[in-house]
Amino acid sequence: MIETIEWTPAGVVMIDQTRLPREQVFVTCHDYREVAQAIRAMVVRGAPAIGVAAAMGVALGVLGADPARLDEEFREICDTLAATRPTAVNLFWAIERMKRVYAEARSGPVEAIRERLAAEARQIKLEDIAINKAIGGNGAPLVPDGRTVMTHCNAGALATAGYGTALGVIRAAVAAGKRIDVIAGETRPFLQGARLTVWELQQDGIPATLITDNMAGYFLKSGRIGCVVVGADRIAANGDVANKIGTYSLAVLAKENEVPFYVAAPVSTLDLALESGERIPIEQRPESEVTHVFGVPVAPEGIRVENPAFDVTPNRYVTAIITERGVAEAPYAESLRALVESKEVVAR
Amino acid sequence: MIETIEWTPAGVVMIDQTRLPREQVFVTCHDYREVAQAIRAMVVRGAPAIGVAAAMGVALGVLGADPARLDEEFREICDTLAATRPTAVNLFWAIERMKRVYAEARSGPVEAIRERLAAEARQIKLEDIAINKAIGGNGAPLVPDGRTVMTHCNAGALATAGYGTALGVIRAAVAAGKRIDVIAGETRPFLQGARLTVWELQQDGIPATLITDNMAGYFLKSGRIGCVVVGADRIAANGDVANKIGTYSLAVLAKENEVPFYVAAPVSTLDLALESGERIPIEQRPESEVTHVFGVPVAPEGIRVENPAFDVTPNRYVTAIITERGVAEAPYAESLRALVESKEVVAR
Repeated sequence: MIETIEWTPAGVVMIDQTRLPREQVFVTCHDYREVAQAIRAMVVRGAPAIGVAAAMGVALGVLGADPARLDEEFREICDTLAATRPTAVNLFWAIERMKRVYAEARSGPVEAIRERLAAEARQIKLEDIAINKAIGGNGAPLVPDGRTVMTHCNAGALATAGYGTALGVIRAAVAAGKRIDVIAGETRPFLQGARLTVWELQQDGIPATLITDNMAGYFLKSGRIGCVVVGADRIAANGDVANKIGTYSLAVLAKENEVPFYVAAPVSTLDLALESGERIPIEQRPESEVTHVFGVPVAPEGIRVENPAFDVTPNRYVTAIITERGVAEAPYAESLRALVESKEVVAR
Repeated sequence: MIETIEWTPAGVVMIDQTRLPREQVFVTCHDYREVAQAIRAMVVRGAPAIGVAAAMGVALGVLGADPARLDEEFREICDTLAATRPTAVNLFWAIERMKRVYAEARSGPVEAIRERLAAEARQIKLEDIAINKAIGGNGAPLVPDGRTVMTHCNAGALATAGYGTALGVIRAAVAAGKRIDVIAGETRPFLQGARLTVWELQQDGIPATLITDNMAGYFLKSGRIGCVVVGADRIAANGDVANKIGTYSLAVLAKENEVPFYVAAPVSTLDLALESGERIPIEQRPESEVTHVFGVPVAPEGIRVENPAFDVTPNRYVTAIITERGVAEAPYAESLRALVESKEVVAR
């Protein structure tokens, strides 16, 4: 299995997700600004993965910081990384975690601070893999045997430190012996489904079929789909879910056709400070992502474009939210709060 | 305005819609087999336009047929053209109309048959433009002023002999002084929205914004959209509508967000012989349309693909069907039958 992101002596190494699956190219970020740029350009993407990337970016930044101006540079490092992408809360969660470690270690020698931060970033990565396996274990019983699972975007190993959230549920269901196959929407404009999800599933030998996003309704209406499983970039206290653009449409179409709609995400994706999804900031990405595919123009010059990268699915369309601590159902205000307050990883 | 299709002394001339908007290349079909191939390859596409193309193909075929084997060759010509694409009923409607003219003219000299068929094909084209203007006139009052109209695929001048069905409604609303703009989904896999619809609107100076198909739900939920207007490839007696893949999803999302969903189509798109949309044949197109964009691969090799080119929207999602003879509303079994039986073009 290819590593999404790694802490190495040479820097933070990432597989370049803008070039998959045609090329497997690894990028080494030598300072925190390069990490920030890699997040912005979606060399690394996926809410949990950009959390890990941000944590490693902070550690890398402090490694290169001037000990005489440490607090000032630390603030600059954190601010730069936090400004890369607005929607996925895992980014901010990881930076906050690094800030706490920094505050604890601040009174010690600079070498100790650096070691603590690097260790914490590696720890966040290791935890993420364990969390995804727990999400998979909790979600697998919900996947109907002998049916097709629909997913959107890439909530796989490449969107995380490994194993994946939505694809983690699928992997765990397959590991549990369920005979399932997957339909993946290509996920325009960035084509995470076409480029990343079906590629991951192909490597695992899990039968996968690629469709264009506008075919999802056709298949949800057909009776073939046993459930939809997607990831999340931020979940509000009431269970509203921000995720890749198109998720809302899938959720409405799933409900209309009585297909269960599951969201798989770590507890770090919960943002209980936001009462509802209406207040989740939605990133607007460059027009060129829509007008061009791999550099090839697909639209006339000068045309206006909108490119919201995420949408918000209201909680009434969400059958359940699968986390590493258990499965939350409506009313979400209570069930999500209970998950955050429980420290145990609850295995179903 | 560019002509979609023309009968010329050199053959049937079409603008190559696979190469728009980057190149404006005209293709001349010298015999009916070339017309059939152009329809199959979507050099010409759109239900009314392929009706015109098929009629011209029949006329061209008879022009080149052996007078000694005319009936046999006529059958072969019609069968070849009818086998090109299965979903749009206008293709079969146009061929049936040419068969009736052939039967009437059959007893006369071969030159007279040829002239009659060529005249009929040109007449179908002229009628189509007039029909689209009547559709526009009937639909324009339904378009809310000062709002955004959403459309899908291309139901414009390029999908017809000129003016368009869904885009005809938009053009007529603009001509009536309504201040509207348009959001067009790019319409993967063939990108008719990105390549054709926004290009047509750009040329007419109608403000248009391009989105990827999976953004439609985001905008329908936003309150910005005053109505959705799409074309149709076949409409069953009960008002179920076959149209470009993704139409069903738009219709469900429109209903969920209380946005009116209109279908604009000529009466020749009605197939009252089919009780419901479940029996409309859905064309499956080549996998390469999904895995490649302008020849560039966007998915890993060897991945399974589904590529249904159309879906069926059940009548309960359709607010009204706008035809050249008037606007039909539910219950459609009655209102559509009444439109077919009325000979008058009813202007609203």
